[in-house]
This record gives sequence, C-alpha cells and structure tokens, in this order.
Amino acid sequence: MEGCFLNPAGYRFAGIHAGLKKRKKDMALIVSDCMAETAAVFTTNAVKAAPVIYDMGVLKGGKAQAVLVNSGNANACTGPGGLEDASRSASIAARCLGIPESGVYVSSTGVIGVPLDMEKMEKGIELLTRSLGEDALPAAEAILTTDTVMKLSSVRLDIDGITVTVSGMAKGSGMIHPDMATMLCFIVTDAKIGHGVLQKLLGRGISDTFNMISVDGDTSTNDSVIVLANGASGCAEIKEGSAACEAFSSAFNQVLGELARQIVKDGEGASRFIEMKVSGAATRADAALMARSVISSSLVKAAFFGADANWGRILCAMGYSGAAFDPSLVDLAFTSAKGTLKVLEGGVPLEFDEDTAKTILLEKEVGVLADCHQGDGEATAWGCDLTYDYVKINGDYRS
Amino acid sequence: MEGCFLNPAGYRFAGIHAGLKKRKKDMALIVSDCMAETAAVFTTNAVKAAPVIYDMGVLKGGKAQAVLVNSGNANACTGPGGLEDASRSASIAARCLGIPESGVYVSSTGVIGVPLDMEKMEKGIELLTRSLGEDALPAAEAILTTDTVMKLSSVRLDIDGITVTVSGMAKGSGMIHPDMATMLCFIVTDAKIGHGVLQKLLGRGISDTFNMISVDGDTSTNDSVIVLANGASGCAEIKEGSAACEAFSSAFNQVLGELARQIVKDGEGASRFIEMKVSGAATRADAALMARSVISSSLVKAAFFGADANWGRILCAMGYSGAAFDPSLVDLAFTSAKGTLKVLEGGVPLEFDEDTAKTILLEKEVGVLADCHQGDGEATAWGCDLTYDYVKINGDYRS
Repeated sequence: MEGCFLNPAGYRFAGIHAGLKKRKKDMALIVSDCMAETAAVFTTNAVKAAPVIYDMGVLKGGKAQAVLVNSGNANACTGPGGLEDASRSASIAARCLGIPESGVYVSSTGVIGVPLDMEKMEKGIELLTRSLGEDALPAAEAILTTDTVMKLSSVRLDIDGITVTVSGMAKGSGMIHPDMATMLCFIVTDAKIGHGVLQKLLGRGISDTFNMISVDGDTSTNDSVIVLANGASGCAEIKEGSAACEAFSSAFNQVLGELARQIVKDGEGASRFIEMKVSGAATRADAALMARSVISSSLVKAAFFGADANWGRILCAMGYSGAAFDPSLVDLAFTSAKGTLKVLEGGVPLEFDEDTAKTILLEKEVGVLADCHQGDGEATAWGCDLTYDYVKINGDYRS
Repeated sequence: MEGCFLNPAGYRFAGIHAGLKKRKKDMALIVSDCMAETAAVFTTNAVKAAPVIYDMGVLKGGKAQAVLVNSGNANACTGPGGLEDASRSASIAARCLGIPESGVYVSSTGVIGVPLDMEKMEKGIELLTRSLGEDALPAAEAILTTDTVMKLSSVRLDIDGITVTVSGMAKGSGMIHPDMATMLCFIVTDAKIGHGVLQKLLGRGISDTFNMISVDGDTSTNDSVIVLANGASGCAEIKEGSAACEAFSSAFNQVLGELARQIVKDGEGASRFIEMKVSGAATRADAALMARSVISSSLVKAAFFGADANWGRILCAMGYSGAAFDPSLVDLAFTSAKGTLKVLEGGVPLEFDEDTAKTILLEKEVGVLADCHQGDGEATAWGCDLTYDYVKINGDYRS
C-alpha cells in the first residue's frame, strides 16, 4: 500500500469478488450520500472502451453520485454489445442504490475484446450494494490488475474553519490478465465546488501529473480520471479565483501528483523510479516535451536499469522531442539520495568518476536535472526503467 | 551478411582497424574515381552530431567524391571541438586522396559525448588510403557497431543498353527510429544523374523505407543517408520524368527498402521481424501514422516476442497514433509463412484457435494486415520484437 485514504464526509465504499477474476477482488463501488458535482478526463485514444464512451455522456450532466468499477475485463473492442453492457451495468447499480441512472459512472479494466459476463456483473452489483461501508480499502484493492500495491492519496485542508478532505485511489500498470496498463483514478472530496470550476482544475491538474508519467508509451483505451465533489464537508462553495479555490487546487494537485507517481513506481517490471526535471527551457511546453521524451525513451530506460550514466541518450531524447532548444547551452546532472553529479555543462561533456555515478544511479529513486539556459520554462516528468521483467510480463500476458 | 554488393563502375573501398574499437574494424572509406553528383538526408534530431553538421555543408555543393566513416565514436555532443575534428578528418582525407576538401563527407557512429582520438583517426585515414581496392566488404564491416550482420543491397538495371548499378551498405541496430534518415547508409551508383533529381528521388524514397522502420523509437543524433552518383557507367544523363528515371527510381527504392528492412531484422536483441500493412485508410499519411505507431509500441513488440496473438494492443496503438479512423470498421489479421488468421472483422472480435495463432506467430517473419475500410490510403512499416536481449544490450552499453 502506498499513501493513505482519509474518508471525506458523505461517501461509502465497497469492494468484492464477483468472479470476473479467479480469486482476487474484482468489483468496486463508490457512492456519495447525495448527488455530487463531477469532473472527469478520459483517454485520447481513438479506440475508446465502452465504459469511457458511456461515461462521456454522464459527464455532460455535470453531476454524479456513484462510480461502479470492475477489473478483469476492460469491456474494450467489444462492439455495440459492449456499450449496452456498460449502460445496463449503470442501470442495475442505479436501481440497487435507488439513485438516478444518469448519476452512475462505470469503469472497466482488464482483458480486451471479451464481452462482460453480465450475470456475474449483476450479482456483483447486488453484493456491492449490500457491502457498502466506511472502509475504502476493499474498493481500492478491487480496482487493481497487475498492480502490486494499492495507490492512495489524501490531503486535508482548512477552508474558512471547515475541514475539507480530498482523497483518491488509482490503479495502473499490469499483470494478471489485464492488457495495456489501463489507468483508472477516482477522486472524492466533500468540498462544495461547481462542475465547471472542478473540470477546469482537473484539466490543469492532470497536465502536470498524469500527463507527465509513462511506463511504456502505450496510451490505453480505458484511461479515466473521475472526480466527485459532494459538498458534505459543509464548506461554502469554492468559487473560481478565490483564496479557497487556490488552496483546494493545491490540495487537489497534490493528490493527483502522488497517485501519478505511485503508478509509475509500480510500473510493470520497474526496478527504479526516474524523475526528469527540465528547467530553463524557452517555454513550459518545450520543457514538458523534453521531460516526457526522456522518460519515454527505451534506451534511456534501459540505461537506468543498468545504472549506467549514459547522458548522451538523455540529450538525444531531448533532441528528438520536438522542442526547440540549443544543445550547446545545456547542463545535465544525475541526482539521488547519494548526491548530485554534473556530467554536461554548456553542452560540453565533463569528466566524471564512473564509481560515483554508479553509487548515485543504483538508488531506487533517481533524478536527472537538465538546464537549457534559454528561458523560464520548467516541467517535471516521471518514469521507470525498462527491465527483463517488463518484457516477461508483456511477452505473454494472456497465458 | 544480408544481401550482396555489386560494384558500380568507378568506385574503390577500404575498411581497416584503427584502434577506435578494441579489435573490430572501425574505419571505412568510399571513393569515386571522379567527382560525383550527390544527395543526402540527415537526422531531424535537434541534437545533431558534428559530422552531420559538417556534411550538411558538403551537401550544399551538390558534388562529392569520398565518404570517410568511423565507428566506435559518434562524435556527437562533443562541443565546438567535435566540429573541428570532423572538418580536420575531411581535410586529412582530401590531402591523402588528392581531391578537394569540399568533396569529402565524414560520418561517425558509436559512443556519444567522447572526443574523437584524432591521432588514431589520422593514422587510420593514411592506412585507408593505402588499402583502397575493389572489395567493398571491409568497408561494410567497418561501419558496424552493435550490428550482428553486414547490410548490403544491389540492383542492376539496363538504361538504353547500358548496365547501371545501384549498391548500398548500411549500419544500424539500436537508436533506430529514423525520421528523415537512418543511422548510416551509403549508396553508390554509376548512373549519370544530376544532384537535384537525385535529392528528390532520395526524399521520396526514404519516406516509404527508412522512415517506416523502428527498433526502439529513438531517433539518433547521427542518422545519415549519403548517395554518390559518378556517371561512370557511361549511360546518358537520367532526366526527371523520363522512363530511365522511372526505372532508376524503382531500383533505387529497392536498395533503400532492402537496407531498411535489413536494419530492422538486425535490431538490437530482435528475435522476430514484424511487417505491419495498413490499407483502406482515409489517406496515405493516416496509414503511415498507424503502421509506424504499431511497430513502435513496446506492448505490441513484447507480445510478438511471446508469439502472443494480442490484437487488442495493435488496435490500441492504431488508436493513439493520431490518425483519424473508425475502429468499428477495422479488419485485422495475422499472417506468416504458416498461414493467415483473421482476428477482427468490422471491429468485432472473431473467435480463433490459439494453437493456430501460435503456429503463425512463432515464425521468424510475421505480418499484420489492417484494413480500415475508409479509403485508399496504404502504408507498410517494419519493426522487430522487444526482447530480454534488447534490455541486456542497452542496460549497460558503455561497459
């Protein structure tokens, strides 16, 4: 388990085994006591799983009360039948919970191209409804697939004397049966905040968090971040531009960032966590392009697996990122708990001690600092190394 | 050795060991008897190796007579000194050969960020000059790095009763995701053809060949394709739009295509060659985006390593390629010498026999056919699988 989950007011949770996976928990339900404001972002993949298509309709309403999740089956590439199954699942959950069907999101993750077992789903939803309670951990466990740990994050903040809680759970990166490292993230808060502001904060928040991580460069068909804000804390409505909004936004981003980094740390086969900070770029967009390009490079990732101070591959990946910069101005350094080592200054390679480099790079968490000396653009991206285990896990996931 | 190299008239070759690598040949020289027309394309990486920057100046002249190559050191990220070394290497070669300095290309491949050992280079150039002869194989061997085989291709064609030869050699195994050119490729022909037409043919030719392969998604700092055409066959000048130009262009593309595919087959750690054909796309550009996206996907590549008929990952990679298409119209099939197996028709998964799929996918060369049923756009891309050996080779390349 990474992080913790503090319950916001007015939510209940359940996680059970419905038989979609052999033994592990495979269905989760998150329910707000009252209708909540909602925001969500979904995969940009042209091939969208049925639940993603369904949820885009739910989001249009701006309000939601429940999220039904199953693992073990992504309900992706399942044709028109898949969309019917998503809709029917929402409908069954709404009936069991006695809430409007328009307020139920559905999320799926797991194997692709196989129809949902609706008999198991229906029984699962009934069992979930009977199991609802204060403990969020069974739900956080039930959404996992190849993940090795639950991913949780909570922040409590004070808004005009009222305690507001923002808490999230996520899953991402694979094993068991799932395909393509589907990423799901659910955030619940008892803040009172409108759908429009919430959606804006989410859009901004993911650009610095979920959009800055990569395990293997493959954008899934099921990626979803869904937020519910039920106002049950009793705080006054958080208006855009206010100090309260600033404080909430900061807490919200902290939760998004922690969950994003937890996903990368648990990346398939990963043995090392990589943080790539680019500063001094002409623009923030250039910095982000370079940082993402480096943590996505197979060659860079393999070098980190070998704790090899191969900075040439890092500069090369910055070079093909599409960002405009002058390589002859760049400084590069490796950093970890064991120290910091400059390897390139003003585009000129520095002599360095390979043993010192090895000591720094053998840490579980390592960083790269790149200063482009061209402006104020900064961005950080997070990745993991490319290992034998990644190849093993994905060489035959279905068997 | 893959392919063969038939000597065009009026060229000499040499390949020797100069000590840049421990034991293997590491310097090559290709010289035309007379000044030749030339064309070239270079990496689009913003970080360009010194020899690439130098060669861009040579290309401007439109004529060249020699190509000097070293392996073992990429002369990339070597600061202003690197450019001086490139220029000095060309100058030494020009003096030894008694030809104009403006007619000498220099190409380097190997480790990034280490200055060239100019003492070894100078002695190497002198030895190369004394070793020039008819045999191109020592040169083809000397340009290799992590490659396991020489990459050669030749086509002979008849132009108005005159035999014209187009022959090429290439190297490349890792850091292969050419975006304009490949690692290193040298084409020599005795055709008589102007620089302008040749450059046009090259630009068109690489878009269907070198720009359609990927080993690891990393576009190198040193990618170069350099062409010399010395007219020594005695054929009449090949004019744009003529039947002779058509025939030459076809032979030229065949050589480019064969070398590109040889590079992928020898991709670092590769155990399986993958051909991805997309047809029925709205445009050729959409088809190319989808085909390249599939052969670049780590998840697809790992699945092919495991001979796993994981078509969902293929559709997913088409989905995030950026191409516009309707997933509900797509047909997908796996194919190899052992047969063809349809797995998706009109976006609907077909039941298939896993044993049949395994038999097809265990072949050394496998294909995927995707028909989008949306138009006439077609493209083919070539890649290789992602294996334990890729991780091993790149986990500690420098040691």
